[in-house]
Amino acid sequence: DPGAGVSDFGLDREGLRACYDRVRQTTEALCSPLEVEDYVIQSMPDASPAKWHLAHTSWFFETFVLSSWEGGLAPVDSRYGYLFNSYYNAVGERIARDRRGLLSRPTVAEVYRYRSAVDDRVREFLDRSADDELDRVRAAFILGLNHEQQHQELIVTDVKHGLAANPLKPSYRGEGGERAAAQPSDLASGPPRWVEFPGGVRPIGHDGGRFAFDNEGPRHEQLVPPFALADRPVTNREFLAFLEDGGYDRPQFWLSDGWYARSRNGWTGPLYWEREEGAWRSFTLDGLRPLGPDEPVCHVSFYEADAYARWAGARLATEAEWETAAVLSGAVVDGNFLESARFHPAAVPATTSPGSSKAPSQLFGDVWEWTQSPYTPYRGFKPAAGALGEYNGKFMCNQIILRGGSCASPRSHIRPTYRNFFPPESRWQFTGIRLAKDV
Amino acid sequence: DPGAGVSDFGLDREGLRACYDRVRQTTEALCSPLEVEDYVIQSMPDASPAKWHLAHTSWFFETFVLSSWEGGLAPVDSRYGYLFNSYYNAVGERIARDRRGLLSRPTVAEVYRYRSAVDDRVREFLDRSADDELDRVRAAFILGLNHEQQHQELIVTDVKHGLAANPLKPSYRGEGGERAAAQPSDLASGPPRWVEFPGGVRPIGHDGGRFAFDNEGPRHEQLVPPFALADRPVTNREFLAFLEDGGYDRPQFWLSDGWYARSRNGWTGPLYWEREEGAWRSFTLDGLRPLGPDEPVCHVSFYEADAYARWAGARLATEAEWETAAVLSGAVVDGNFLESARFHPAAVPATTSPGSSKAPSQLFGDVWEWTQSPYTPYRGFKPAAGALGEYNGKFMCNQIILRGGSCASPRSHIRPTYRNFFPPESRWQFTGIRLAKDV
Amino acid sequence: DPGAGVSDFGLDREGLRACYDRVRQTTEALCSPLEVEDYVIQSMPDASPAKWHLAHTSWFFETFVLSSWEGGLAPVDSRYGYLFNSYYNAVGERIARDRRGLLSRPTVAEVYRYRSAVDDRVREFLDRSADDELDRVRAAFILGLNHEQQHQELIVTDVKHGLAANPLKPSYRGEGGERAAAQPSDLASGPPRWVEFPGGVRPIGHDGGRFAFDNEGPRHEQLVPPFALADRPVTNREFLAFLEDGGYDRPQFWLSDGWYARSRNGWTGPLYWEREEGAWRSFTLDGLRPLGPDEPVCHVSFYEADAYARWAGARLATEAEWETAAVLSGAVVDGNFLESARFHPAAVPATTSPGSSKAPSQLFGDVWEWTQSPYTPYRGFKPAAGALGEYNGKFMCNQIILRGGSCASPRSHIRPTYRNFFPPESRWQFTGIRLAKDV
Amino acid sequence: DPGAGVSDFGLDREGLRACYDRVRQTTEALCSPLEVEDYVIQSMPDASPAKWHLAHTSWFFETFVLSSWEGGLAPVDSRYGYLFNSYYNAVGERIARDRRGLLSRPTVAEVYRYRSAVDDRVREFLDRSADDELDRVRAAFILGLNHEQQHQELIVTDVKHGLAANPLKPSYRGEGGERAAAQPSDLASGPPRWVEFPGGVRPIGHDGGRFAFDNEGPRHEQLVPPFALADRPVTNREFLAFLEDGGYDRPQFWLSDGWYARSRNGWTGPLYWEREEGAWRSFTLDGLRPLGPDEPVCHVSFYEADAYARWAGARLATEAEWETAAVLSGAVVDGNFLESARFHPAAVPATTSPGSSKAPSQLFGDVWEWTQSPYTPYRGFKPAAGALGEYNGKFMCNQIILRGGSCASPRSHIRPTYRNFFPPESRWQFTGIRLAKDV
Ligand SMILES: [Fe+3]
Ligand SMILES: [Fe+3]
Ligand SMILES: [Fe+3]
Ligand SMILES: [Fe+3]
Repeated sequence: DPGAGVSDFGLDREGLRACYDRVRQTTEALCSPLEVEDYVIQSMPDASPAKWHLAHTSWFFETFVLSSWEGGLAPVDSRYGYLFNSYYNAVGERIARDRRGLLSRPTVAEVYRYRSAVDDRVREFLDRSADDELDRVRAAFILGLNHEQQHQELIVTDVKHGLAANPLKPSYRGEGGERAAAQPSDLASGPPRWVEFPGGVRPIGHDGGRFAFDNEGPRHEQLVPPFALADRPVTNREFLAFLEDGGYDRPQFWLSDGWYARSRNGWTGPLYWEREEGAWRSFTLDGLRPLGPDEPVCHVSFYEADAYARWAGARLATEAEWETAAVLSGAVVDGNFLESARFHPAAVPATTSPGSSKAPSQLFGDVWEWTQSPYTPYRGFKPAAGALGEYNGKFMCNQIILRGGSCASPRSHIRPTYRNFFPPESRWQFTGIRLAKDV
Repeated sequence: DPGAGVSDFGLDREGLRACYDRVRQTTEALCSPLEVEDYVIQSMPDASPAKWHLAHTSWFFETFVLSSWEGGLAPVDSRYGYLFNSYYNAVGERIARDRRGLLSRPTVAEVYRYRSAVDDRVREFLDRSADDELDRVRAAFILGLNHEQQHQELIVTDVKHGLAANPLKPSYRGEGGERAAAQPSDLASGPPRWVEFPGGVRPIGHDGGRFAFDNEGPRHEQLVPPFALADRPVTNREFLAFLEDGGYDRPQFWLSDGWYARSRNGWTGPLYWEREEGAWRSFTLDGLRPLGPDEPVCHVSFYEADAYARWAGARLATEAEWETAAVLSGAVVDGNFLESARFHPAAVPATTSPGSSKAPSQLFGDVWEWTQSPYTPYRGFKPAAGALGEYNGKFMCNQIILRGGSCASPRSHIRPTYRNFFPPESRWQFTGIRLAKDV
Repeated sequence: DPGAGVSDFGLDREGLRACYDRVRQTTEALCSPLEVEDYVIQSMPDASPAKWHLAHTSWFFETFVLSSWEGGLAPVDSRYGYLFNSYYNAVGERIARDRRGLLSRPTVAEVYRYRSAVDDRVREFLDRSADDELDRVRAAFILGLNHEQQHQELIVTDVKHGLAANPLKPSYRGEGGERAAAQPSDLASGPPRWVEFPGGVRPIGHDGGRFAFDNEGPRHEQLVPPFALADRPVTNREFLAFLEDGGYDRPQFWLSDGWYARSRNGWTGPLYWEREEGAWRSFTLDGLRPLGPDEPVCHVSFYEADAYARWAGARLATEAEWETAAVLSGAVVDGNFLESARFHPAAVPATTSPGSSKAPSQLFGDVWEWTQSPYTPYRGFKPAAGALGEYNGKFMCNQIILRGGSCASPRSHIRPTYRNFFPPESRWQFTGIRLAKDV
Repeated sequence: DPGAGVSDFGLDREGLRACYDRVRQTTEALCSPLEVEDYVIQSMPDASPAKWHLAHTSWFFETFVLSSWEGGLAPVDSRYGYLFNSYYNAVGERIARDRRGLLSRPTVAEVYRYRSAVDDRVREFLDRSADDELDRVRAAFILGLNHEQQHQELIVTDVKHGLAANPLKPSYRGEGGERAAAQPSDLASGPPRWVEFPGGVRPIGHDGGRFAFDNEGPRHEQLVPPFALADRPVTNREFLAFLEDGGYDRPQFWLSDGWYARSRNGWTGPLYWEREEGAWRSFTLDGLRPLGPDEPVCHVSFYEADAYARWAGARLATEAEWETAAVLSGAVVDGNFLESARFHPAAVPATTSPGSSKAPSQLFGDVWEWTQSPYTPYRGFKPAAGALGEYNGKFMCNQIILRGGSCASPRSHIRPTYRNFFPPESRWQFTGIRLAKDV
């Protein structure tokens, strides 16, 4: 498992090093099919060049792990902080986010040398630091690993967006690189079924012990009324029915801000969908492909997810409902993740028992599921002191919670309590829809 | 009481008519100090010209009450729907919101004639409609009254914004029109005190019976942990301390979106504040006045409210906390409202007993209090069918709840369950801050 | 003649006063059909509210005539400079141009009182100033009169634009106010005929003696090759043929910047044209009217004029050609001007002898004729010292010369040497097309 | 001479091929110091990635030379027309100009293969085409060579802009690559001297015979009054005096549009200038260098050139004056051009005889000299039929003529009649100032 150990606070030096090596190697493996030119471009302000991700994740270890080492280490290149700090005001000034794609230097080779130099230093640190020195940054070290996993997902989504911006519609790994998906089950072609969950005062959030992001805690109680979730995500076939029913032209299904977003952006379908001679295709990391009717619909904004749900007579789940369902159904964090290297959501596989109505399928992997919950702090949440307090807390406004991970998330990175968040207009992540309803 | 009856579903025809007359007259009285020219301007896209408010509230009665009358009534002017529909997609096309200030016609006199024609028709309807006809639109009629009260507040805030845009800094009602505030209490000059409330599963939302907006229901239960509220809103003196402590230049107190809003808009203090020769003044409806140190700080965005709270080591309340406090403390809906005709928040009055630590003062009136709660539907909320379903539901995204009413709200319009909402960047409403904390 | 004397440097005090009174009265007469509300609005940044024009022209006399008077006169209102200075950096700061429509105060009545106060002071100045005092500002006084005439035209065009922005499409002077045009000649319905002019070294520009704007001089020589002008402006019928031939969809006729302007603005025909059920109408100051096929096409940008000319196998004239034609043909400055109060271009009248091929008709009045000449200084041009040097000189970039005056220009304001100028994208002036070609 | 023959219509096949090879090789040599990443970025919409230039110039030969060949040649890649067509509407749709930097593919290696494939075909065409076939495209072939030379200059300016956008301020050819400039003369440190030219009717424009762009003709007569030109361009020392005299803060020197451009863009000095600890430096292709006081000022907009000239009590030349001066002074097209590989303007060299006041120095090379003349067609100019008619003609609006070539222009590309043109706000070309005055 390439991510084994990323949540384990108890690893010894050997274990930390092995885990570090695996995570760092995974990042580079993701980039290995890229041409040098692919590393450079920034196809929109929200996306970053692949080489920026490679460098930024290294800067993270330099800044939050190595720089705390007694005696200290001069930065590999003192100018890199300005280039590769993402948003940490406490660390200093930085280049504007939408200018990351204007930088041809450092070159890709230099960035890899930078990574390598940081790797050497991290290993040296693991070898030579005193125990108390190691313990003092252990949490930041583990955070750095999880942070790098987040950027692994962003590399996938940003590379996809960059290739899609190209009229040549290039494939990420060339012809023949595509991985076949598992045999689909019948579940995807029939109507969704409802899986019911009882209400009650429920513990929500992470209980510590292993690694979790600060925004997953504190664990606390919420009153969750009875509810039901659909047994699988909404499929392309279903979403197409919405589209063909005039869904994109009927304001009654849309939030007001969503309707404006649709109009301003000219949305007539999910991102990456295009119609040619009556047939729908979507752009994937393997190029343009016919739309798979049984695959979960993907690359929809919160607004589209919400409009679809209204059209379907249902609603999105709250994040407390989603977490409750994940916990109560005992769903295992397994499925179509980054490790399967498909980089595309798959129809619910036949290995899923159609008889089981106790557990929703595909809660984990395939597509991030928009909830209806705005991203807010849990009761009692306090950002950490210092720069790492900026990691999550300052973004708790104007964003919506997504749950469950996607086909671009490392499996070891995801938990039932994991809170992802994006602005409601975002579409370039692998974001999909699961319906919910009151019971 | 100018608004008596606006929430009463049981009024007979006589009562409805009296209530209608009072509400309509109040709206016009608010406009009486205006010059014709003041009715026309739109100082920003969020604000509307006063004459637009006068006409739109009339169009509302025409559209949602009169047009349902058996036999029907032709609209007073069939072209007015395009001009005075605010946002009801189900009713039809309309002029772009930011172009309302480009319309010199209909003139102010024509708008008043339009109001008068609608008034005649409403009265005729109240006289002549069959009982079942009346009952069928009774809810819409009551909604129309409450809707007009909302626009009364908007007239105050929009006129203020329009006058403030003028370098001449004109006064709304001329020299000598200002109303003195009551004698302030000592509460405002000392530090705020905390009023504690117990936790528990609490009923939240309106129980029907009398009028409430759809977004105030359904009444449902939430688990509210123990908490404390400050006994009064944050004052100008306190906010000035934040400002002078570099509050506007220290990103650690700000949400990320807030920091961008501050930078993009060049905020260096609340809206309407200006500094001249070392002294702070603020623009009021009575012109530029020295800043009253004991008055509640006003015209701050959610971002500023949130940043202030962090600086002060506290937080904003959730809306469930706020409502719980209002209910448990037995606070009466009274205070500095529209009816006091001050149109400016006042220091907590001496009539407030300083010995009472059981109830926060000024929960109602003076300033709307930003909560930390995004505007979301209550469990089980379903927008009504038809155009009136667009009244509130479609705005449940990217906005923040405010509670308690302001010095520009009609007293009869406000309830403990009342949910006001604005985008976090808004500042032109009378919006202020009350601190909260965990217990 | 309402403008008699505006160019006469030799008027005595009596004559100046009579001329002043006539010009000022004409401005107010143009506004007399307006509702108070019509004076307030600003329908785009390029246009100004009518009351701003009324005040600005008064401020001009205050600033450039009265303030020079020995002993001086305090300004009528010291705050007005900030509001009514248009663009004179040397005079001081001023409100942003696109915020003129946000000002409800001073009211229309106050602006008229301001005008009246300025009038009293100007008359007092004419009565009481010493001869040398009068002579020192004589040129500025005459400039003030001509400046006010320019704003008379702008009042017409800006009021038209404001009314057109209103979905009610109101008429400027109400029903029945329209003035009939003269009987049209056959010239407009047949093809245009070419009037040839010989080449040579030609004197260009104004020779002084009477008033002219600084940009009309110095008079100098240019080498003008032989050329021909069309005998009349392009008509709506002709322009419609261009439109129906796909003129707006064929880039080969357009300058590159023009093609972008067309796309960015969504132009599909001249400003104020609209099609309903197959019939073209245009908005006029008398409301929406069927398009007059023989009327000169109007409200086209330079880009459309240029594209039309290419489509027609011709070109626009240079300003030197236009001036040469006006001088050599002996055309009299007469025709459809502001004084005819039609405020709309008219078909070439039957009183124009169709046998005369010596002189192009309608060189003066009806529509400003786009030339192909960018607005540049004449050889030897030097802006005056001081603020009045900003009058014309600083705009000599990115604008195109127009010649001949329009139906909104005062007749006494126009000369063969008169150089009007607007950016090539402008359409709200009464701008039309006359074809030219090499001989 | 790498450009020998680019203007020669009489070359035989051998000569054409040699000339083609030289021009193509020069382009690639310019790119040879670049990293792959440097080829990809687009630092502003006006600039293009280096690999786009490499491909576009090849597409030009494919489209305008090879595609006319009898029997025809399928394009090397049919998808490249969409990517590498710059602005030829008649040829077809194309990618938006500001998205050229979003394309990672085709890769740099693929672009070089594309170039090579085009080269093979061009050579085959030169070998195998019939004489009449060759003659039919001879003009387009020569145009293709000159077109590629234009893009050589753009590669230099666009690469410079791209490197300058990088906080690392990288050098184009690394440490030690810089070429020393010649020993400067005393001319640059003393005041400029005036060289006078007589007036008269002058022939202006290219007379054919050899290659010239269409916009350089037809040759025609203009009346040029007597004038004087400064004997050298304005230096950094002189421009610094303007700056230190408050030139950027005093609107009286600026055109109105220029003043807005300065404010909107925050200009406080020429592009690439920066001040650190009291010392001015400018970014060059060899990195940040101290400002050379005797070097011609460079990277100024027309607005800054015009403001400087007013401040200095002079003016810019008309293009007719400039051409007259170049012709009458017998200035040879020689100096600091692309071939000197300095890529930076140099102080007037000591080899220039200071005693000679007959001829202005540095008319050619070093910096393009802003004239005061808007870019308009010469009398009788007609764009060619077909796509190549779009080459120059459609840009004759809103641009200003520059003359003389720069340190980034191939020497063989420049002529006394050469008309370069850019919008008045442009600064990223090597643009400078030469003063003129009336005599
Ligand atoms: Fe990061
Ligand atoms: Fe409303
Ligand atoms: Fe003016
Ligand atoms: Fe090109």
